[in-house]
Amino acid sequence: MPRIVDLSLPLRDGGPSYPSDPPLRIQPYRTFAAGGCNVSIVSMGTHQGTHLDAPWHFIEGGKPLDRIPLTVFYGPAVMVDLAPGGELAAKTPITPEMLAQHEAAFVSGGRVILRTGWYARFGRPEYFSDLPSLTAEAARWIADKRIALLGLDMPTPSKIAGRECHHTLLGPGAEIVIVEGLTNLHELARDFIFAGFPLNFVGLDGSPIRAVGVIPE
Amino acid sequence: MPRIVDLSLPLRDGGPSYPSDPPLRIQPYRTFAAGGCNVSIVSMGTHQGTHLDAPWHFIEGGKPLDRIPLTVFYGPAVMVDLAPGGELAAKTPITPEMLAQHEAAFVSGGRVILRTGWYARFGRPEYFSDLPSLTAEAARWIADKRIALLGLDMPTPSKIAGRECHHTLLGPGAEIVIVEGLTNLHELARDFIFAGFPLNFVGLDGSPIRAVGVIPE
Repeated sequence: MPRIVDLSLPLRDGGPSYPSDPPLRIQPYRTFAAGGCNVSIVSMGTHQGTHLDAPWHFIEGGKPLDRIPLTVFYGPAVMVDLAPGGELAAKTPITPEMLAQHEAAFVSGGRVILRTGWYARFGRPEYFSDLPSLTAEAARWIADKRIALLGLDMPTPSKIAGRECHHTLLGPGAEIVIVEGLTNLHELARDFIFAGFPLNFVGLDGSPIRAVGVIPE
Repeated sequence: MPRIVDLSLPLRDGGPSYPSDPPLRIQPYRTFAAGGCNVSIVSMGTHQGTHLDAPWHFIEGGKPLDRIPLTVFYGPAVMVDLAPGGELAAKTPITPEMLAQHEAAFVSGGRVILRTGWYARFGRPEYFSDLPSLTAEAARWIADKRIALLGLDMPTPSKIAGRECHHTLLGPGAEIVIVEGLTNLHELARDFIFAGFPLNFVGLDGSPIRAVGVIPE
């Protein structure tokens, strides 16, 4: 049996959301006492917790979720550890030079997960504000590698060039699916199978996902 | 590259929900015009569309989603086709005798997907009311096989013994995860890899999932 590592943040009523996004609400809808069984109701944004961005999140005319091949969301992935054994300091710019040390991981059509260690800050006030950030040039460097999926352990790719990074990664010619809010990356080795399928939302900009790493037997 | 078959119903604003469950609502929250990017807000029940049931859905003290090992949701599965090339008639009782013809598929710890063909009725009024239904004895027969996961192409296991079937399958000694609302089963062969992870809801009764079948190269 393969080992499966959970790479997803927990979802609880009132849990943290990106500041400009909807709150996360989870409430009982039916209960044993009223209805004979438990059914809950969930209200959340499409970029809640561990989630992915489709091009249509930032690109006018860009692909929504349901126009991305399912094969993008499942398959071999490589973890690039930018802070072995620790974490990048708050607000560290992630530059092309830092990525170039791991250039062999960035294969056309592949999946790359960047580890900064920032997921250790989940639940603290600075999680959404002081994250390590891709520079605009780093996003361009990644886009030029034509990978299919970029995974991040920060809640967004960049606070210093957020709009530009999203446009570069999701834009025409790149169309890289961005997975944000990954956790538990210390439990993975460099190579693993990534699985993180969006819910089957038609025409949407993103989806919360259950991202996992599969370690074959 | 493996082939991936989408086994999940589409999720659209106002789409069908089980009659006693919350409605499915999907609305824009931010847009290019107001906010610079697209973010949507979703409200739905935990048993919306293609979804899975944890024991806590029907069993007091039963396991919620986050106490089920992730390995249950991913791995080899066998499709049992109860209506090769067609579909069972509306309201057909599914009996132990019908299942016993496929007894070899029901292996302890395994995953079994029952195909009735009922998913062709998705979107029609009868989808939620006239489905083929497990008898209480069929649920007992399945529970005794100690499989880990039972997948169904109906929206619920039974209209003739719904409460009893849920209690038997989810109850102590069985604790079989039930996946409901599968579709596109005609695109699968008998053997495939099932993947259908719940969102990382803490303490909940169920979750919408993106269920897929992976056909190795």
